[in-house]
Amino acid sequence: MHIWDAEVRVRYGETDKMGIVYYANYFNWFEIGRTEFFRSLGMSYRDLEEKDVMLPVIEAHCKYFSSASYDDMIIIRTRLEFVTGTRIKFLYEIIRKDDGKLLAQGHTEHPFTDSTRKPINLKKVLPEVYQMLLECVQ
Amino acid sequence: MHIWDAEVRVRYGETDKMGIVYYANYFNWFEIGRTEFFRSLGMSYRDLEEKDVMLPVIEAHCKYFSSASYDDMIIIRTRLEFVTGTRIKFLYEIIRKDDGKLLAQGHTEHPFTDSTRKPINLKKVLPEVYQMLLECVQ
Amino acid sequence: MHIWDAEVRVRYGETDKMGIVYYANYFNWFEIGRTEFFRSLGMSYRDLEEKDVMLPVIEAHCKYFSSASYDDMIIIRTRLEFVTGTRIKFLYEIIRKDDGKLLAQGHTEHPFTDSTRKPINLKKVLPEVYQMLLECVQ
Amino acid sequence: MHIWDAEVRVRYGETDKMGIVYYANYFNWFEIGRTEFFRSLGMSYRDLEEKDVMLPVIEAHCKYFSSASYDDMIIIRTRLEFVTGTRIKFLYEIIRKDDGKLLAQGHTEHPFTDSTRKPINLKKVLPEVYQMLLECVQ
Repeated sequence: MHIWDAEVRVRYGETDKMGIVYYANYFNWFEIGRTEFFRSLGMSYRDLEEKDVMLPVIEAHCKYFSSASYDDMIIIRTRLEFVTGTRIKFLYEIIRKDDGKLLAQGHTEHPFTDSTRKPINLKKVLPEVYQMLLECVQ
Repeated sequence: MHIWDAEVRVRYGETDKMGIVYYANYFNWFEIGRTEFFRSLGMSYRDLEEKDVMLPVIEAHCKYFSSASYDDMIIIRTRLEFVTGTRIKFLYEIIRKDDGKLLAQGHTEHPFTDSTRKPINLKKVLPEVYQMLLECVQ
Repeated sequence: MHIWDAEVRVRYGETDKMGIVYYANYFNWFEIGRTEFFRSLGMSYRDLEEKDVMLPVIEAHCKYFSSASYDDMIIIRTRLEFVTGTRIKFLYEIIRKDDGKLLAQGHTEHPFTDSTRKPINLKKVLPEVYQMLLECVQ
Repeated sequence: MHIWDAEVRVRYGETDKMGIVYYANYFNWFEIGRTEFFRSLGMSYRDLEEKDVMLPVIEAHCKYFSSASYDDMIIIRTRLEFVTGTRIKFLYEIIRKDDGKLLAQGHTEHPFTDSTRKPINLKKVLPEVYQMLLECVQ
């Protein structure tokens, strides 16, 4: 199983009037998590898109346990729950680096499509990428 | 049961390089949905906060069926699944106004807290608000 | 001279930990201002883009006089400073609707380009649109 | 003179349907620039705020020369134009790391205030911070 930790620092504009990070911004972090997950495998999500493979989101979920504050260093821990020829599901943990506290936990699910958003089968289109992702699950 | 439709127009900055609305932005719309839901009951969420009642998010979820594009008029249909003294859960449907197509569906769940994020019981703190919300469910 | 007032309500996620609207968000409002300015002329910016006319930003400026708060109704007052075959400049005023207070003032400047970002001359490409915009200045 | 380079990677959600970074997001980068500028001096902007010194923005400006794309590494080069007891002005350059190309250039100006947004004189409130900033200009 492959797990990847990316790091971001909380931006001022990501906070809201409660003084903590606005809940929608966690989904931006999830996206950084999967981008860096791909990079950790030696490929970039940008390259995938240039090969006409897209991962639009069909489901997104987040549970919030504690809040992140301005200037906190945040760890985005990403791994795969599964990958098939047509779908992929990422799991995320949002952790405050200072004290290791788990702030949130979530997932996103994505079909593989081309740039016209027609479903494709990754196993056929990019078998070596599919294989690499499959090995990340086990 | 009380259901409320709010409307927003898709902003340019809400789209991403896929040419459609970035998935995290649906959660901003959900927030508009619950704000306008409160307003439709003759109270404002701003007033609630001034009475020291906060609704931080503890769970957020969205399923995406189709995509929204720049300049689309969007209906945010909001209703309550439940309210208790300590928790409230909103259900949302995101609908493209032009063709009535359901684009996404989601929910958020919130505890009632004070501004120090200590749990409170709405039934005790603001019984008339609690009662009004309860009637929205039935 | 043509002046157009668009209205937006301040979103929770647009505030920051200072409790007021984060400064970058005013530029999202400017974009709404120019979108609605076009619509008030009976054309939509979306249509312009579909005719392969783009208005990327080459300069953006904002002066902040007072702050906007969550749930405030905001008027975005937009007009043109000038339009030439190759450039256009919008002026904006951000006004709190409740008390008519001027919160901010700014401008954006844009070249006309095609979707490959090559400069075009609007006077030649869409002379009737150019003429309509020219009349907005006078 | 003190100049500080911070780095960010372009997020997917920061792009728009033109396929490039939405113009308002450069102002988020400017904010990261000044945050990291403070950190490079051994203090954090978060600490300043905890000492009841705020830097709300009263003017923001950006000129755009070329566009940033998804996944680009971006350098935010920050320096001070001036600091007085009551005001501070930051200058920013946004540079694509790969080819060193200058993408944008801008500035922000800020009064020093307390958390109630009353003007304060930094020279009196935090003379050692004022002195340190003054040395950054020269």
